[in-house]
Amino acid sequence: MLQMGIIGYGYWGPNLVRNFNVAAGSQVSMVCDMNKQSLSKAKKAYPQVRFTSDVNELINDPEVNAVAIATPVFTHHELAKKALLAGKSVFVEKPFTHTVEEAEELIELAEKKKLKIMVDHTFLYTGAVRKIKQLIDDNVLGSIYYFDSVRVNLGLFQHDVNVVWDLAPHDIAIMDYLINDKPQAVVATGSGHFDRGLEDIAYLTFYYPNNIIAHINVNWLSPVKVRTTLIGGQKKMLVWNDLEPDEIIKVYDKGVKVTTTEGKYNLLVNYRSGDMWAPRIQATEALRLIAEEFVHYVEEGGKVVNDGAAGLKVVKMLVASSKSLKNKGEMIYL
Amino acid sequence: MLQMGIIGYGYWGPNLVRNFNVAAGSQVSMVCDMNKQSLSKAKKAYPQVRFTSDVNELINDPEVNAVAIATPVFTHHELAKKALLAGKSVFVEKPFTHTVEEAEELIELAEKKKLKIMVDHTFLYTGAVRKIKQLIDDNVLGSIYYFDSVRVNLGLFQHDVNVVWDLAPHDIAIMDYLINDKPQAVVATGSGHFDRGLEDIAYLTFYYPNNIIAHINVNWLSPVKVRTTLIGGQKKMLVWNDLEPDEIIKVYDKGVKVTTTEGKYNLLVNYRSGDMWAPRIQATEALRLIAEEFVHYVEEGGKVVNDGAAGLKVVKMLVASSKSLKNKGEMIYL
Repeated sequence: MLQMGIIGYGYWGPNLVRNFNVAAGSQVSMVCDMNKQSLSKAKKAYPQVRFTSDVNELINDPEVNAVAIATPVFTHHELAKKALLAGKSVFVEKPFTHTVEEAEELIELAEKKKLKIMVDHTFLYTGAVRKIKQLIDDNVLGSIYYFDSVRVNLGLFQHDVNVVWDLAPHDIAIMDYLINDKPQAVVATGSGHFDRGLEDIAYLTFYYPNNIIAHINVNWLSPVKVRTTLIGGQKKMLVWNDLEPDEIIKVYDKGVKVTTTEGKYNLLVNYRSGDMWAPRIQATEALRLIAEEFVHYVEEGGKVVNDGAAGLKVVKMLVASSKSLKNKGEMIYL
Repeated sequence: MLQMGIIGYGYWGPNLVRNFNVAAGSQVSMVCDMNKQSLSKAKKAYPQVRFTSDVNELINDPEVNAVAIATPVFTHHELAKKALLAGKSVFVEKPFTHTVEEAEELIELAEKKKLKIMVDHTFLYTGAVRKIKQLIDDNVLGSIYYFDSVRVNLGLFQHDVNVVWDLAPHDIAIMDYLINDKPQAVVATGSGHFDRGLEDIAYLTFYYPNNIIAHINVNWLSPVKVRTTLIGGQKKMLVWNDLEPDEIIKVYDKGVKVTTTEGKYNLLVNYRSGDMWAPRIQATEALRLIAEEFVHYVEEGGKVVNDGAAGLKVVKMLVASSKSLKNKGEMIYL
C-alpha cells in the first residue's frame, strides 16, 4: 500500500486526498497545508490522516512513500526536489514547473535516484480524451488537419500566473497527447486588462509539420463557460463538448475531398456530409485512474503518458507561448 | 424610383434582386449574368425585368440609375469603375475590392463625379448588430475589453480567395463598426490543407489601444456551424449567437472588479455575477434596410456606416491579415 503525503489542501488538494485515499494500492498518510483553517476542515473529513503545516515534516516522514504536490506552480520545483532528495517519487500538479530548467533538473534527479515523476495532466485519463486518442490512432479521423480548443469562463484570476499558465496546460497536454507529431513553433496573442502585467485573454497557435495547426483560446473574462474542441481530419471531423452531459463527443462523417483534374486550377471540391455518431464515453473519474496509474508506475515502472518528460514538453510550450504573448505574437520556435 | 441594374446572379445576386425590387424607392430594371442558365431562372421569377449577359449593355443603359455588383471580388474594381464613369452610383458586394489601391481609386472617382458608393456589409443593418452598437454607445457594457468572434462551418470553398477574404469581411466590418477605436496592428495565423496556396483556417488578432483585443476565428473545415461573438466589457458581458432563434443576444451582469489596495501586489478581485438579460431584437431583413438606405443615400446624400471609406478600412484589414497569414503571424501595422 503506497502511503501518500499530499502537500497543499487548497483548490485541487482535496481532490487528490479523496482519490489517493480510495484508489487501489494507495492511501493518504499525511497532508500538509500552511492554512490552519484548511487543515481543520480536512481533519474532520479524514480522522485517520495526520496533518502538518511543515512540508519538511511530511517529506521526511518515514511512513510517507510518495509525495503529491498541489501548490502554486512557482513552488513545485523546490518541493519536488526536496521530495526526490528524500527518496520519494512525486506526483505534481499541472503545470509541472515554472521554467524549463526546473523541469530538466527534476527529471535528471529522478533518473539518478531511480524515482518516478508523474504530472497531473488529468484530462489524458478522461474517457473523452482516451476515446479521441483511439479514434485518431485507429485512423477513423484520417490525417489531422487541425485542433481547435476553446476554454473560457469567468475565471478564478490567478495572482501569480497569466491565463496561459492557468488554463492552457490542459489544452497543450491534450493536444500533445492526441497529435502524433511535434509542434515547430508558436504564435501567441492576447491582452491583460487589470494593469498587473498578467494576460487574462490569450490565443495560441501551434504550427505543426504537414500544415497541421492547433489553436487554443483561453479567457478568464467570458460570461459563459465553454469547453469545446473541434478536431478536423481528412476522413472525419469531431466535436468534443466537455460540458455536454450525454453526447460529449460527436463524430461527423463530413469532410471535403478536393480532386485535381488537369492542373492546379481545375479543382473539384466535393462535400461529404453523412451521419453523426456519438460514441459512448467511459465515465470513471479520471483522477481515480491517474492515482492508480501513479501507484502502478511507482511500484512496477513501465511507461506513462504523463511522466516528467511529458510535463517538460508542456512547460516548454507554455514558456514559448508566454514569450510570444509578451512580444505580441512573435513566432517562437520550439 | 431608383432603377437598379444588378450585375451577377449567382449566390448573392438573387437576394439583391429580390430586395431592390421591393424596397421603398427602388426597383430592378436590368440583371446581368454571363451564365445563361442563371438568367433563364431569373427571367421566370421577374418577367418585368430585362436581362443581358453583357455588362456594358447594363452599365450604359440609360434607364439604369445605379448599379449593384455581386460578382467575384477580383472583378469589383473594373465593374464599379465602369459604372462610376457611366455616371452611376454603385452598391458593391463585400469585400469592396481586392486591393487597397483599387478601393482608393473608386472612392476618389466617386467623389469627383459626385456619386455614391455603398458596400454590402449586411450585418451592420441587422437588428442584432444595431442592438449591440446601441448597448455599447449607451455605455451599458462599459469600456470594451475584447471582441471574440467565431464564424466556422463546412464551407463553400472559394476558388479565388482564402477563408479570410470569404468569411472575415463580416467580422471585420462588425468589429470596426462596434469598437469606437482604430486597430493598430494585426497578427494572423492559419493553415491550408489542399495544396493550392489558399488558407481554409485562419485566426486573426487585432490589437487596439487600451488593451482592447479582437479575435476572429474563421474556418471552412468545421463539421458544425458556429456564429458566436463574445464581447466583454468592464460593466457587462455579451454573447451574440446568430444561430439562436430566440435569445440571439444575451447580456450578462457578470464581470470582474479589481481593486488595488496599497500597491500592485494586493489586488482584490471581486466577481460580480448577476442576471442575464436577452433584449428583443428587430427582425426586419437587413438587406431590405440596406437597399432602402442605399436609395436614400443616392438620392439625398448624408452619411452611411458602410460607405466606400468603411469598405476601404475593411479591405486594408483584409490585406494586412492575409499578409500576416502568409508570413505565419508576422505583426502587420495598420
